[in-house]
Amino acid sequence: MRPSGRAPDQLRDIRITRQYTMHAEGSVLVEFGNTKVLCTASVEDGVPRFMKGQGKGWVTAEYGMLPRATNTRNQREAARGKQGGRTLEIQRLIGRSLRAAVDTKKLGENTILIDCDVLQADGGTRTASITGACVALVDALTYLLNARKIKEDPLVGLVASVSVGLYKGTPVLDLDYVEDSSADTDMNVVMTQQGGFVEIQGTAEAEPFTLDQQQSMLTLADSGIRELIRLQQQALGW
Amino acid sequence: MRPSGRAPDQLRDIRITRQYTMHAEGSVLVEFGNTKVLCTASVEDGVPRFMKGQGKGWVTAEYGMLPRATNTRNQREAARGKQGGRTLEIQRLIGRSLRAAVDTKKLGENTILIDCDVLQADGGTRTASITGACVALVDALTYLLNARKIKEDPLVGLVASVSVGLYKGTPVLDLDYVEDSSADTDMNVVMTQQGGFVEIQGTAEAEPFTLDQQQSMLTLADSGIRELIRLQQQALGW
Amino acid sequence: MRPSGRAPDQLRDIRITRQYTMHAEGSVLVEFGNTKVLCTASVEDGVPRFMKGQGKGWVTAEYGMLPRATNTRNQREAARGKQGGRTLEIQRLIGRSLRAAVDTKKLGENTILIDCDVLQADGGTRTASITGACVALVDALTYLLNARKIKEDPLVGLVASVSVGLYKGTPVLDLDYVEDSSADTDMNVVMTQQGGFVEIQGTAEAEPFTLDQQQSMLTLADSGIRELIRLQQQALGW
Amino acid sequence: MRPSGRAPDQLRDIRITRQYTMHAEGSVLVEFGNTKVLCTASVEDGVPRFMKGQGKGWVTAEYGMLPRATNTRNQREAARGKQGGRTLEIQRLIGRSLRAAVDTKKLGENTILIDCDVLQADGGTRTASITGACVALVDALTYLLNARKIKEDPLVGLVASVSVGLYKGTPVLDLDYVEDSSADTDMNVVMTQQGGFVEIQGTAEAEPFTLDQQQSMLTLADSGIRELIRLQQQALGW
Amino acid sequence: MRPSGRAPDQLRDIRITRQYTMHAEGSVLVEFGNTKVLCTASVEDGVPRFMKGQGKGWVTAEYGMLPRATNTRNQREAARGKQGGRTLEIQRLIGRSLRAAVDTKKLGENTILIDCDVLQADGGTRTASITGACVALVDALTYLLNARKIKEDPLVGLVASVSVGLYKGTPVLDLDYVEDSSADTDMNVVMTQQGGFVEIQGTAEAEPFTLDQQQSMLTLADSGIRELIRLQQQALGW
Amino acid sequence: MRPSGRAPDQLRDIRITRQYTMHAEGSVLVEFGNTKVLCTASVEDGVPRFMKGQGKGWVTAEYGMLPRATNTRNQREAARGKQGGRTLEIQRLIGRSLRAAVDTKKLGENTILIDCDVLQADGGTRTASITGACVALVDALTYLLNARKIKEDPLVGLVASVSVGLYKGTPVLDLDYVEDSSADTDMNVVMTQQGGFVEIQGTAEAEPFTLDQQQSMLTLADSGIRELIRLQQQALGW
Repeated sequence: MRPSGRAPDQLRDIRITRQYTMHAEGSVLVEFGNTKVLCTASVEDGVPRFMKGQGKGWVTAEYGMLPRATNTRNQREAARGKQGGRTLEIQRLIGRSLRAAVDTKKLGENTILIDCDVLQADGGTRTASITGACVALVDALTYLLNARKIKEDPLVGLVASVSVGLYKGTPVLDLDYVEDSSADTDMNVVMTQQGGFVEIQGTAEAEPFTLDQQQSMLTLADSGIRELIRLQQQALGW
Repeated sequence: MRPSGRAPDQLRDIRITRQYTMHAEGSVLVEFGNTKVLCTASVEDGVPRFMKGQGKGWVTAEYGMLPRATNTRNQREAARGKQGGRTLEIQRLIGRSLRAAVDTKKLGENTILIDCDVLQADGGTRTASITGACVALVDALTYLLNARKIKEDPLVGLVASVSVGLYKGTPVLDLDYVEDSSADTDMNVVMTQQGGFVEIQGTAEAEPFTLDQQQSMLTLADSGIRELIRLQQQALGW
Repeated sequence: MRPSGRAPDQLRDIRITRQYTMHAEGSVLVEFGNTKVLCTASVEDGVPRFMKGQGKGWVTAEYGMLPRATNTRNQREAARGKQGGRTLEIQRLIGRSLRAAVDTKKLGENTILIDCDVLQADGGTRTASITGACVALVDALTYLLNARKIKEDPLVGLVASVSVGLYKGTPVLDLDYVEDSSADTDMNVVMTQQGGFVEIQGTAEAEPFTLDQQQSMLTLADSGIRELIRLQQQALGW
Repeated sequence: MRPSGRAPDQLRDIRITRQYTMHAEGSVLVEFGNTKVLCTASVEDGVPRFMKGQGKGWVTAEYGMLPRATNTRNQREAARGKQGGRTLEIQRLIGRSLRAAVDTKKLGENTILIDCDVLQADGGTRTASITGACVALVDALTYLLNARKIKEDPLVGLVASVSVGLYKGTPVLDLDYVEDSSADTDMNVVMTQQGGFVEIQGTAEAEPFTLDQQQSMLTLADSGIRELIRLQQQALGW
Repeated sequence: MRPSGRAPDQLRDIRITRQYTMHAEGSVLVEFGNTKVLCTASVEDGVPRFMKGQGKGWVTAEYGMLPRATNTRNQREAARGKQGGRTLEIQRLIGRSLRAAVDTKKLGENTILIDCDVLQADGGTRTASITGACVALVDALTYLLNARKIKEDPLVGLVASVSVGLYKGTPVLDLDYVEDSSADTDMNVVMTQQGGFVEIQGTAEAEPFTLDQQQSMLTLADSGIRELIRLQQQALGW
Repeated sequence: MRPSGRAPDQLRDIRITRQYTMHAEGSVLVEFGNTKVLCTASVEDGVPRFMKGQGKGWVTAEYGMLPRATNTRNQREAARGKQGGRTLEIQRLIGRSLRAAVDTKKLGENTILIDCDVLQADGGTRTASITGACVALVDALTYLLNARKIKEDPLVGLVASVSVGLYKGTPVLDLDYVEDSSADTDMNVVMTQQGGFVEIQGTAEAEPFTLDQQQSMLTLADSGIRELIRLQQQALGW
């Protein structure tokens, strides 16, 4: 039924590769099918000015796409001289989501900068980014603990994210680009390891959706995210 | 119980004033309590390049805040040389929401540019913007019909928007700034006159929220939006 | 004789409304006929770097127009990524004019930021801005005095501004947009309560003007500004 | 009495050197004492979009200062990424002033771009720019006539400009930097060969000025500009 | 002797992986030891405005580094709002080098846009970029030939690039980051398959270098580039 | 044989005029035939942040062209809002070259800012800039010594620069614009007074060049630079 041939509740092949590049404290290549995102977590001393003196840390994120990550080439944002609205929206979402994973008091006045750069896009780049970045974040926290820069583990729990949508009226999980383009509704969901909702962003593309449809989509997201969290744990060797 | 003294399901005083300024085809001052937004709808011939030749129209939005609309002055975005991420995110939301109100085929190759400028902010500026802009949009469509630039009314139905949140565990409607600052969850909901969901954007500020809480918040939003649509209709003299 | 039907020496209906918005220390809606400008005065601790350590305060101004304040929509400067030359020229003029109203030594190391945002334009936005902003400035000075942040009133005297022009050879006062567009000469004059000139900016649009014409225009401006200062005083309850 | 030792009504040494550089259709080095500005006039086919199809030409100007034209180095505007407010204000003034010298109908759909670049600054850069640029403009018009690109001379008359001010209460002509810094009032005046005023921009630096003072300053400017126009004519070999 | 333990004339391990991502007409991951660059070649119809109507094609390049490609994180250029001088310099070099590989007349009015994005940096990112991009370029030309968009192969010959330097007085090939940081001289050389020089960019870091040293470095570069071209051919299956 | 009629090894007329403008610590007009560049050296206290506390000085350069320095007018970079790639490349080259002339330890924590502004361009603007800027730099160092701001002369030796190229197969020295446009190869060489190479930047425009050709060009550059250094010494009165 789905263009991808997957069952409605079936994730794409998910791969989470740690230590993908050598410089960052956390470096993860996350693949949701053909969507491939390099997520790095960089540790920096200190916090931004607006947070100084509170004894708390900061987690923030930036997002980018390589110009030819997509089917037709997009203009390089550095060459255009600014990040687009979509980019800013996504990186704000990633930042908020990862802050839900961390107790910033235990982080001390350290900053963790997440960079999510899409090497290849096939739908779901923001959900893959959050899922991969959380693993990179854990590696950066481990680095801080091992380097004796912090004493307690600031991790509250893993967070992961998946998209759900209505494809010809049926709720489907983890849409690829083709499915996303023809879906009636697109919803990105971020949840914690404990099963709580961190973010829900649902948009009716063609037809408005009902409370019932919304309910079914969230239920589907919940099961997908449980599986993603299991894969994050596996990648982390937990 | 609420800082504002309102009942959990009580909207602020809502005022919708049409023809607030004289140049725009639609011009509405919308007030949600102390939040005041000037929404104008400007009609322009033609459509952006990426839509040319499809015989369809376009509806888009821009959002801004006067520097001292808020308690402490914000730097003027024109002086900083760019719009911030929050601004871009909100104007993208307004644009998507209003496109759900319109049949772009019936609009012909005309563009309607919505400007939402916040004169005074006290929480809920994006939901007030959408609610007021929809009335300005209707006035702009009426202008197009009266000027014989289009033949059929492109309006599919009104859209309106409200925020809901969890305040000390209780779902509350239409949060003002003080309530929003201390709420656990903040959710912005956009719905059509027909009762369908157009957008749901929920963010857990402190604690993740549950499926049940989400459900209660949406139910509350639904009742608030029905009332807002009634007020839009009243303002339009329907 | 004038398109507006006014006598050559007749101002438009002037309205000055204080406390128009709630957050700013001074907030004034000024109306010169259909020209409506929201002027806020924001008090900030400290002064810009180039003034530090001199024990003196600073007054500066920013100016903007809502995109649809005018008959055809102007591109939003925040979206274009820069303020235009006209904007910068006007805000420099407003800043210089208001600094003439204040003894910066008595202001201490405080900054007053004036924002003039045009809600509706019909000619004379810069002269209305100066006239309204001066009232907002007085309210901000009163705030500083009441809050015991300064000891002496820094106000040297009110300043106000009006445009004069040559319309079909006759000097006319306070031109609206239609008159301004067809005037031969356009002159903006800023004066103090004491009757001194602070700024004169005259431009021959079509034909150069003579010393005599210049003289008559300044005399007309002088009488208009006296009336405007009376209205400022009335608004201030003096 | 004046820091420069000049009589109140005495210009600095003025030099106007044509064909100072080799590529431009008009190229003039203008010197007002130690102020040195290179003014070029470049002829381009066609007019900006907003003027197309009217059969009229366009004259516009840009202004810049070399970073070390001044006593302390100014940041290069190209490196800062934008032109400052002062720069924009001056180039708008230069453009308006030169358009007063030309009958744009006789210019056909040609554009003359004036560049005024200050090599060394010692006060009065904008007045020197206008005075020198007018000579470069005449050379560019001659080029157009000689190249048979236009049939009639579009020159309406020369324009020139000088500053006047109040120095210790006395009106003085053509202020250098030291005089300008301590003057009470600074007024820039642009006049035509025929003796009409094109622009008057007067600013009270310390004390407001009176109608009488303004009158005396304009009279002084008038005599200075007559002399400048004589020097322009001499340079042009008229 | 070298920090890397390599012989003076020894390249790092070179790997050239084609079809590394799926959307681009040419997509190559090139590795010079730990330096990893993703090079894509995108085919676009038409040429930039300045080349229209000449019947010739265009090859151009853009370069970027992921923020954490390096040991300490670099600010994202898209977030800073501009590309730095180093970036522009490198992408101009890549573009010029690849244009030497192509007969633009045979390319027709098509553009090939090369993107070189550094995933991991360890010295020599520009030389790796050129070497990898040339293989991606060949794949894009093959695409154009197979798609019948051009008739003749525009490839004049492969180009490749390597760095050479003086390390403690000895000429060494293909410097990694540690070697580069302590080298006296750094020279980047681009050559064609036919053995001609396309670009030489040599910089004395500490001590100026002599004609003899320059000679030895070029000889070393020549042998390294021959080997790189052999590896390009191998990767292309020639 | 050469379009300029010069012998292959003949420089253009070189003129080096010191104290060309009055404000800068060093100010030199350098002329290579019709190429005229104003080079100023400005002394500033302190060093950029990345160099603080090392007890060393800094030398850096900026480059610009007046819009009509060239045959057709170039858009003003300050108006475009950014410096182009060519500009950045050239100013980085000038900065690196001049740092080779100075022992930054002896300079103390002082910065010398070089500005090279092209008044008239006819090929070789970057080589003229380096050659003239070095003389301005020496004057700035003398200023520092005379003002007792430093104790020892930081000058290591003069640097100068010239272009060489292959014109119809023959190596030629110091190409003007016409020669440069039709040359097969263009090479810019920077050397020290002691005869060492500081920078070599060679680009094959049409045909790749050989090791032999490269050798002949460098030999030619060497003789030209010896002559330029003699002229620098003459200008300095050494």
